[in-house]
Amino acid sequence: MDERVKNASVVSIGNEVLSGRTVDTNAAYIGQQLRLIGVPVVSVHTVGDRQETIVRTLALAASEADIVIVTGGLGPTDDDLTRHAFAEYLGVELELRDELLAAIEALFQGRGWPMAQKNRIQACMPQGAAVVPNDWGTAPGIIAEKDGAVLFALPGVPREMKEMLAASVLPRLRDLAQGQAVAVRRLGCYGAGESTIAEMLGDAMDRDRNPLVNCTAHAGVITLEIVALAATEAEAQAMVDAEEAALRDLLGNLVFGVDEQTLAEVVGLELARSGRTLALAESCTGGLVAKFITDVPGATRYFTRGWVTYSNQAKIEELGVPAELIEAHGAVSPEVAAAMAQGARRRAGTDYAIGITGIAGPGGGSEQKPAGLVYICVDQADGTNTSKHIFSRDRRSVRLRAAQTALNTLRLGIGG
Amino acid sequence: MDERVKNASVVSIGNEVLSGRTVDTNAAYIGQQLRLIGVPVVSVHTVGDRQETIVRTLALAASEADIVIVTGGLGPTDDDLTRHAFAEYLGVELELRDELLAAIEALFQGRGWPMAQKNRIQACMPQGAAVVPNDWGTAPGIIAEKDGAVLFALPGVPREMKEMLAASVLPRLRDLAQGQAVAVRRLGCYGAGESTIAEMLGDAMDRDRNPLVNCTAHAGVITLEIVALAATEAEAQAMVDAEEAALRDLLGNLVFGVDEQTLAEVVGLELARSGRTLALAESCTGGLVAKFITDVPGATRYFTRGWVTYSNQAKIEELGVPAELIEAHGAVSPEVAAAMAQGARRRAGTDYAIGITGIAGPGGGSEQKPAGLVYICVDQADGTNTSKHIFSRDRRSVRLRAAQTALNTLRLGIGG
Repeated sequence: MDERVKNASVVSIGNEVLSGRTVDTNAAYIGQQLRLIGVPVVSVHTVGDRQETIVRTLALAASEADIVIVTGGLGPTDDDLTRHAFAEYLGVELELRDELLAAIEALFQGRGWPMAQKNRIQACMPQGAAVVPNDWGTAPGIIAEKDGAVLFALPGVPREMKEMLAASVLPRLRDLAQGQAVAVRRLGCYGAGESTIAEMLGDAMDRDRNPLVNCTAHAGVITLEIVALAATEAEAQAMVDAEEAALRDLLGNLVFGVDEQTLAEVVGLELARSGRTLALAESCTGGLVAKFITDVPGATRYFTRGWVTYSNQAKIEELGVPAELIEAHGAVSPEVAAAMAQGARRRAGTDYAIGITGIAGPGGGSEQKPAGLVYICVDQADGTNTSKHIFSRDRRSVRLRAAQTALNTLRLGIGG
Repeated sequence: MDERVKNASVVSIGNEVLSGRTVDTNAAYIGQQLRLIGVPVVSVHTVGDRQETIVRTLALAASEADIVIVTGGLGPTDDDLTRHAFAEYLGVELELRDELLAAIEALFQGRGWPMAQKNRIQACMPQGAAVVPNDWGTAPGIIAEKDGAVLFALPGVPREMKEMLAASVLPRLRDLAQGQAVAVRRLGCYGAGESTIAEMLGDAMDRDRNPLVNCTAHAGVITLEIVALAATEAEAQAMVDAEEAALRDLLGNLVFGVDEQTLAEVVGLELARSGRTLALAESCTGGLVAKFITDVPGATRYFTRGWVTYSNQAKIEELGVPAELIEAHGAVSPEVAAAMAQGARRRAGTDYAIGITGIAGPGGGSEQKPAGLVYICVDQADGTNTSKHIFSRDRRSVRLRAAQTALNTLRLGIGG
């Protein structure tokens, strides 16, 4: 094969991933791991337990890619056909390897279980193929080469697949790809849509650039993934650093965090750093902001309490919202959002409080106050900041976007 | 082709689904829709924008299945190659269809946009192929037959794909599969693990049965999907009804709902039906139970308020938990869970209240009280029911299972 690894194909084998009984997370995981070492996946094939189909799929995958990674079909039962298909594709016989049989027997002995006769097949390899050791189960993997492609077979059990990929496959691919280092960084953005951010970035998102910038959107959070390829690790890191600085220049405070950081984590870090505290008063989000805040381990350092005041009576009794205020403006109003935040901050004795009131829908809206209308207030010692939003789509989206927007408003208010 | 449709292969085309920039939900959606009309998917292939690869994949898919459903690659740009690949696979030329061109021009005119020259290619079809009308975008789909297989090409845009699948493809497949009716029902179960439930079901889960019972697990909820095939709709429905009754006999009150019902919906229905009300006092779940309860539209009928009392002071001040109780037993104790529930019910004046206290982890545990330890109390007029749980895995799982178990405890208490 070429000195430099160009691309890979992933093949998932097994009826269970096709029937909807099992979600195939293996292919996505392998794709992500390969991308991180600079090897793009050019095709993913999922096929059932039929030897003829597996053989044809191996041939197709090997014609498309330098590397083929197969998962599944290495178990001991009659519908596990990957090793037979490998042998047929390579044009060789299966042979029993004594050292593999000994290892499998030892594994059963260690567990105190009898070894079934069927497990002997797991000690068989296509003639000439190399072994991917499996220290986590009974099925060793297979390495074979044909027509310039290298094919790996790994078990379908996610834990075994991941361990073997990390221990044996990725190091070998890194060797094959030597002189090629990769660095990756993700920037989390909130406060503008995907197309707006794409426009702000201009040609930074061109597909043939290095570093490459990928953009994905989930629940209002836009994630920019920077992938840099270079001759050395240090060079790739420097490229990612420079790209991050350039993107931050373009996007300003739309960028809230790096890599896996969430809005709640960023807010929490800033609160913990400054020794300040937070209380929450939620109506339409029904506890979702509190859930996000307490998703973060150690939130107890800055979050003391929250209220879900779903009824008007609860807003009045728990937060001291004046009944007349609700009567005059309605429960969904900027005045009530502010009174909720102020009441929560006063009762809890915290530095900050958020108040949220709105109409999550689908029912409960009117022409003046449609479903999706949400008021968010952040109260602190030097004043309140109340904003009006109209979120679209369904109840789930409205609640999610309201909660995320509340956290983002707090972030901008505390300089997180 | 055969009178009866046996199986299908799904092909997703496009670099974007391979790069990790877009998650391919099309294949899973199509698989689910086909399964509901009794057509199993035997392979799924995801390939990039290379004509040669697409042609080879079409050939492989058509050799495996009676029906091939392709999505993606029908756009107007140079990397959209599905129609070229169809023509090559069929051994024919592309031809411009005047009526399709007129429809695309009309669409642009209606939107007030100029039509780019590039869009003309979307009016081209392989010679002899039929058209899948697209009333939702500019790309018509393709129907072609070769070697006993019927191939459909649909756009990759999920909305257009779903509309066209429902309007044109599924009815045609139903016609092809006439004399074959399918009925599906799902049963949601909570309170036992997947393997326990599988054991209780015995041979009801055999793979060659009709009705077939599939089992999936997500966040502690075990879903049993019953799929019955029969000559008529009524017959299939009767088989599903009988199977549901048999499974309920085996599983008793482990079954909480049908189809898409959640624990929170079932609890809500029962509370609304009986005109009773609920309050919540959460510590380690941090608002997650309130979030689940208020996920359900109309929860305002039975849910009035909740507290997230994260600090001890909040438990004392908001719920009236005696400080001495916390000192004597610790905040994570059955006594404090009960006092939280009782305090919440008293303050809110509701019929039921749930109190939850525990250690979500990863930190904060000790030998006596490890991370994952959670006490759940349901308080009502005729007494309290407090239970102890040790949930495993990570913070996210502990919180999720604690919240679900609290809802399930309430369900069993109110006879939902």
